[in-house]
Amino acid sequence: METVSTNRAHGGVQGVYRHASAATGTDMTFSVYVPPHAEGARLPVVWYLSGLTCTHANVTEKGEFRALCAELGLIFVAPDTSPRGEGVADDPDGAYDFGLGAGFYVDATQAPFAANYRMWSYVTDELPALIAAEFPADMDRQSIMGHSMGGHGALTIGLSFPDRFKAVSAFAPIVASSQVPWGQKALGGYLGDDKAAWRKHDAVALIEDGARVPALLVDQGAADTFLEKELRPDLLRAACDAAGIPLTLTLREGYDHSYYFISTFMADHLRWHADRLKAGSKA
Amino acid sequence: METVSTNRAHGGVQGVYRHASAATGTDMTFSVYVPPHAEGARLPVVWYLSGLTCTHANVTEKGEFRALCAELGLIFVAPDTSPRGEGVADDPDGAYDFGLGAGFYVDATQAPFAANYRMWSYVTDELPALIAAEFPADMDRQSIMGHSMGGHGALTIGLSFPDRFKAVSAFAPIVASSQVPWGQKALGGYLGDDKAAWRKHDAVALIEDGARVPALLVDQGAADTFLEKELRPDLLRAACDAAGIPLTLTLREGYDHSYYFISTFMADHLRWHADRLKAGSKA
Repeated sequence: METVSTNRAHGGVQGVYRHASAATGTDMTFSVYVPPHAEGARLPVVWYLSGLTCTHANVTEKGEFRALCAELGLIFVAPDTSPRGEGVADDPDGAYDFGLGAGFYVDATQAPFAANYRMWSYVTDELPALIAAEFPADMDRQSIMGHSMGGHGALTIGLSFPDRFKAVSAFAPIVASSQVPWGQKALGGYLGDDKAAWRKHDAVALIEDGARVPALLVDQGAADTFLEKELRPDLLRAACDAAGIPLTLTLREGYDHSYYFISTFMADHLRWHADRLKAGSKA
Repeated sequence: METVSTNRAHGGVQGVYRHASAATGTDMTFSVYVPPHAEGARLPVVWYLSGLTCTHANVTEKGEFRALCAELGLIFVAPDTSPRGEGVADDPDGAYDFGLGAGFYVDATQAPFAANYRMWSYVTDELPALIAAEFPADMDRQSIMGHSMGGHGALTIGLSFPDRFKAVSAFAPIVASSQVPWGQKALGGYLGDDKAAWRKHDAVALIEDGARVPALLVDQGAADTFLEKELRPDLLRAACDAAGIPLTLTLREGYDHSYYFISTFMADHLRWHADRLKAGSKA
């Protein structure tokens, strides 16, 4: 693991790191904020998965998470959203919603994407091992959140590993990838036409198929232009109600899909995560 | 005035605006955050002047000021750092420390810069009039802060208009432009060789020449690579001590010159400003 940069911030260290990923076959860059902590302490880890077009940098610069992570003693990890580099396949038309910056947190099975687009393995397996090895992380206390495509990632990964993540939340997530254009394009392109394979990468389908978590927290901007076509929080509401999953879903009047929205509600999410990560404190 | 964008954030509105400036003879872009407020209220205004290479966007995206401005009821204004556009003269070598992005908050007298580089008039006269006209601003309660070159701007403007600004503070400011390479290049290029003309644009010289403010707040990263050559807080310390100006200058161990530093101490500065802006509240 190579250190790209470190900056003192809010008493801790905001770092950016790069490593050769076995999962994706490319170099991968990610950011980690480590708050101030006692020597030898192990701190809970909040995973943040980003949305379409983003890298680790968007939330790192605009997320307004550090002050509260410092106060609450949370490590904050932000991976990239796809493999990148020479030879990595992209959307044939260069579209923003598939290929580079749009890995959708799946392991692709379709050529040419299967070669590098293995973001599921990267985020659920390879990067956690690296975080555990290189940072003062208590891997028994992890939680996950994300935005838009990253909200989809947080929900599907959180629902798939209910024992690993003590809290799962999302900002304006794609809740039912199989049912919306962004998701249909991505899942078709990465996983092929067999829609049975899609269900593990669709939060609503996972819930319908029996996945359970203790609770979900979702904030959604009411002025988000993607709300009705791509995000569909109503579908998550219906699935959670049917499954008996307590969902705190709040429509935020006037808020859009941007980091101005995310940063506004970041503190609420971090506090919600911290409450659920307290159990088993080793700090 | 044209609205470039508005985003709901922390209960208020983060806007970006553009207007044809008479002072600079160019279009100028700036950002304004207006916190949530009661209908008809007039709110105090915090001016933030940015550093070399920056536009309004850097602090707007990375400054982490909105949550507290919302809590304290402060309007936050971030101008650009120079005129821009076709025909605007730049550094002959395209250097980052002169010309575009490096207006140094002076009215240039030297060709070819005198035509457009009139940031002093823009920031102290034209833009305040626009803010007063277009936003719910209480212009009897203004304060000013800035970073690096913008810290130089905040100090020199604050010292020049002690009745206007109820608080003056800076992050890693250039405190003695006449005595450091960045400042000497800029003042020489914009104002010419007569160093008498430089003194009004040098905070330490202004204090030596009798300018007074009730107090100054300065934070400086100890790991800032520009500290010794360009920033020289020791010179401000000496000038303030000699003049009897209470200066709260804190060297912050491990912090550099970046927005990770600024955003860490932004809350301290905003609270300090808010304390001094309370008098005469019309909110």
